[in-house]
Amino acid sequence: MDRSRLEAFSDGVFAVAITLLALNLTVEGPAGKLWLGGQLSAKWPAFAGYLISFLTIGIIWVNHHALVRSIKQVDRVLLFVNQILLIFVVLIPFGTATMADYLPQNSSSARLAMVLYSGIFLGMSAGFGAILEWTLRTGHVYHPLPPEQHWPARRRFVGGALVYVISTVVAAFSAPAAFVLISVVAVYYIFERTPAAPGDGEEEKPPA
Amino acid sequence: MDRSRLEAFSDGVFAVAITLLALNLTVEGPAGKLWLGGQLSAKWPAFAGYLISFLTIGIIWVNHHALVRSIKQVDRVLLFVNQILLIFVVLIPFGTATMADYLPQNSSSARLAMVLYSGIFLGMSAGFGAILEWTLRTGHVYHPLPPEQHWPARRRFVGGALVYVISTVVAAFSAPAAFVLISVVAVYYIFERTPAAPGDGEEEKPPA
Amino acid sequence: MDRSRLEAFSDGVFAVAITLLALNLTVEGPAGKLWLGGQLSAKWPAFAGYLISFLTIGIIWVNHHALVRSIKQVDRVLLFVNQILLIFVVLIPFGTATMADYLPQNSSSARLAMVLYSGIFLGMSAGFGAILEWTLRTGHVYHPLPPEQHWPARRRFVGGALVYVISTVVAAFSAPAAFVLISVVAVYYIFERTPAAPGDGEEEKPPA
Amino acid sequence: MDRSRLEAFSDGVFAVAITLLALNLTVEGPAGKLWLGGQLSAKWPAFAGYLISFLTIGIIWVNHHALVRSIKQVDRVLLFVNQILLIFVVLIPFGTATMADYLPQNSSSARLAMVLYSGIFLGMSAGFGAILEWTLRTGHVYHPLPPEQHWPARRRFVGGALVYVISTVVAAFSAPAAFVLISVVAVYYIFERTPAAPGDGEEEKPPA
Repeated sequence: MDRSRLEAFSDGVFAVAITLLALNLTVEGPAGKLWLGGQLSAKWPAFAGYLISFLTIGIIWVNHHALVRSIKQVDRVLLFVNQILLIFVVLIPFGTATMADYLPQNSSSARLAMVLYSGIFLGMSAGFGAILEWTLRTGHVYHPLPPEQHWPARRRFVGGALVYVISTVVAAFSAPAAFVLISVVAVYYIFERTPAAPGDGEEEKPPA
Repeated sequence: MDRSRLEAFSDGVFAVAITLLALNLTVEGPAGKLWLGGQLSAKWPAFAGYLISFLTIGIIWVNHHALVRSIKQVDRVLLFVNQILLIFVVLIPFGTATMADYLPQNSSSARLAMVLYSGIFLGMSAGFGAILEWTLRTGHVYHPLPPEQHWPARRRFVGGALVYVISTVVAAFSAPAAFVLISVVAVYYIFERTPAAPGDGEEEKPPA
Repeated sequence: MDRSRLEAFSDGVFAVAITLLALNLTVEGPAGKLWLGGQLSAKWPAFAGYLISFLTIGIIWVNHHALVRSIKQVDRVLLFVNQILLIFVVLIPFGTATMADYLPQNSSSARLAMVLYSGIFLGMSAGFGAILEWTLRTGHVYHPLPPEQHWPARRRFVGGALVYVISTVVAAFSAPAAFVLISVVAVYYIFERTPAAPGDGEEEKPPA
Repeated sequence: MDRSRLEAFSDGVFAVAITLLALNLTVEGPAGKLWLGGQLSAKWPAFAGYLISFLTIGIIWVNHHALVRSIKQVDRVLLFVNQILLIFVVLIPFGTATMADYLPQNSSSARLAMVLYSGIFLGMSAGFGAILEWTLRTGHVYHPLPPEQHWPARRRFVGGALVYVISTVVAAFSAPAAFVLISVVAVYYIFERTPAAPGDGEEEKPPA
């Protein structure tokens, strides 16, 4: 199994999932006689959710790319953990729509919707962590990390994943606070380096 | 006709179909005043169907890749049998949604919905078998199997396809039993080797 | 502009359009208390439309591939005529859904729906013809046809396009007759060679 | 990070967004007993919006391709500004649907809908300008423009973007006038050269 079709399939799933996010953006239209400006304002949680989910999928796509391009040999285990990652990516439009529907409320449903939203990101993060773990254990990458760098690599990943653990817990108490946290992460990662993947920044081709 | 665009098109169809699975995941939202937890629990068949269909498409994608990468020369017959495979892949979101709608019932409609769901997988499997048969008959692969290995290759494929024949028959009597069977297959294949394709595990490039 | 991204974009559009065809396949579900078998039977035009549109998109994709791979140099005019082709491809799911909704009726709306459906295929065919014409006029292909073969190439294309002219006219009088005609074309092309594209069957790489 | 996966992901998003445009094309069907011709006529803004948005996405895709293929080295900043571009591309089906719903009206909602539609194109244009600016500043392209050509390159881009500034302002006073302006731009760009990107028309491969 070569890497390119794994990338092509994953890219397709990322691209469709990110585009389906916009299906949640709808207004009632002229039938209801409401001013469009009022309709759009009332949909602010859908727009905020669109923005944050779009940025978050973008970040995980960049990280996925950086990690996968370091891989020399694809096996069945990697395909499986990649599927785990994608199963959560595809859930994001659903999670975003549900979260946005309840965000303006202060109810147990709103908190549960935010736990679901944050939990999907946590699952996605876990899938990404499983791919990282696979690269560390199998060493099927172009520049395997020496064993003494395994824990630092894991630690940097866990640092990122921890935010989604925290936001999932926070969501159980306050949906808006969890949403702010998730938004801060999305914006923060745009300006920061992601956890370095094994071989990140190196050539993805074997030395000739 | 070269192989790469067949792969690109098929990957696109697989990626879109797998992502559209999530369109069936919707909740009523706050309008109905029902607790979100109750709404999500009531949708358990949709989530179960999402998971099993996602894994099953993932498995057939992996098998498709393994088989197609062994192919040296694409002809019109192969394009046609590949279309047969894809026509069933694209039906999966519809089959999953219908099956999930009826799964909680014990009715002839529920059994018919499960026959439909299982039958779509059977059709997909038949399309995959037709591609396998094409590779055996034309020998348009990098490492054609010697004739004495044709029947073992077919037998391994039929072993897998047989499960969908059985689950389709079982569905006519018990929808839940058929769903359990299909789920077991999806989980089993994740941990098992798939039927070896001609040239599987070999280089997909001609010897220089 | 190189050819590969034109192919990748077109393949993406073909793949999404073919997958969206299935969005029209929906049943009412258990809410209406109708037997699922009855619901599925009543939707037979949607299933027939799905099958024929799927096969027809598949055929035009194969032809598109054969023609585009012979192209050596992409220019702005080609990009524009390719957009014309794709604008009709993307309309197919809408045309199919509308046609299927009205097919069981014998009304002027049913005939108009079939004119629309057939007309979309005619437009797609015209877009394909424009790409063929571009290859003949510019000669930006690996093996340009000698001028004396231009008319035979056009004639073979026009032969295929003519069917959609006829089916569009027939649709104005009888929707079912036009649908049978379109179906026959779809099945016929699966077993027949398509109009040969310039350089078809030849290497798409320049002689080294 | 290599360029090819950035292109593959962007192409996927462009292809899905352009295909989702057609989801807004729906008619009521036979249930409402209205003649299909009347239903289609009443939907003319949806068809006009489909056409213009399709052409506009097509133009930006061509420009995106021309600019990105000149890029030698992808960094995090480029990935971010590319996301900004895509975030507006994905909004186009929503903007088109909303604009089309209100276009036949003469109301403040109709003008706001057109401001939204035009504003999405303006945002897309700004994202494209940010990519251009990145290529000028970093010089990470195969044939960097000499500094004295930076302002001419910007001027040509700003010339194009200015149209969307104007149409957004015009939309606040007259929705139809703004739509005509946007349509003229879409048709104009089909026949004209786009702002030359650095290295446009040159080889995208480094001299061997």
